Amino acid sequence: MAELKESTVSSKKVYDGSFLDVRKDIVNLPDGNTSTREWINHPGAACIIPIMSDGRLALIKQYRYPVKSIMIELPAGKLDEGEKPESCALRELEEEIGYLAEKLTFVSKIHPAIGFANEEMWIFLAERLIESQKRTDHDEFVELMPTSIEDAVRMVWNGKITDVKTIIGILWVERLLS
Amino acid sequence: MAELKESTVSSKKVYDGSFLDVRKDIVNLPDGNTSTREWINHPGAACIIPIMSDGRLALIKQYRYPVKSIMIELPAGKLDEGEKPESCALRELEEEIGYLAEKLTFVSKIHPAIGFANEEMWIFLAERLIESQKRTDHDEFVELMPTSIEDAVRMVWNGKITDVKTIIGILWVERLLS
Repeated sequence: MAELKESTVSSKKVYDGSFLDVRKDIVNLPDGNTSTREWINHPGAACIIPIMSDGRLALIKQYRYPVKSIMIELPAGKLDEGEKPESCALRELEEEIGYLAEKLTFVSKIHPAIGFANEEMWIFLAERLIESQKRTDHDEFVELMPTSIEDAVRMVWNGKITDVKTIIGILWVERLLS
Repeated sequence: MAELKESTVSSKKVYDGSFLDVRKDIVNLPDGNTSTREWINHPGAACIIPIMSDGRLALIKQYRYPVKSIMIELPAGKLDEGEKPESCALRELEEEIGYLAEKLTFVSKIHPAIGFANEEMWIFLAERLIESQKRTDHDEFVELMPTSIEDAVRMVWNGKITDVKTIIGILWVERLLS
């Protein structure tokens, strides 16, 4: 196999935002030359496929500022420092749509943006949901959109759903539960 | 429907790298409060599903510095300024694996990282490939990995392929060609 690996010569934080941590590294390329790599240091994220008591998916609608659009999504969120993906999944499920899950099953791990971020995302199936007594996160402007698995799959293939974690989660749940 | 939209109060470029363009905006939230949004201004990208003459997919192996791993991927790349997605797809196909495509078909548009980037990615099916006379891009360290559609689909479900564009492209080609 060809040598493909790049090794780090130096690494510098070039922007330290409240949300984004941007790095610029010097790397050695496989042919001995050097190059620069700019990338986002991301804490990782959890994405939840919530199955409601009537079998529908708890999709959400949410405005996503970077793409300036209301997106149809599965609930998801970033890991807090030191937080396990499972704990993050349960926390985000409660914060975003106000449900607890009695059963949480790991489905898959994906990489959303390997060109410019080290983000890993863990996908979980959440079943046996019960309504939480706690208020949901006041910072989240989210609209619940219960959708049958069949309709969700249709929205993947007809291009209504374009968010990658949501596409992959829906095709996973079709495979697991249909 | 609940009001979900956020409107821009101000926008500032906070890091202007050779590769990453980072913005920090002040926004008005639906409830009248203000908040900040940090995001990557991305030119967009094209991803190609190349079908070789024997019916196999031209997957590639490539070292991805942000995730510090050799990833199994479909060829893809960023749009040059003013470049159409179709042109980008054909250019990247030739640069990365040395093929021209006589037939290029738009498949779908996806959003890889809506939490922190405005990236849109156009996926194309590339058929009737012919070898290019031009040398491939010297900056690309890429290993060709011809793979049957069946094996590629297996690697999606068993977790060997974790890159989102590649997962979605493979499940599309399974649907279109199997």
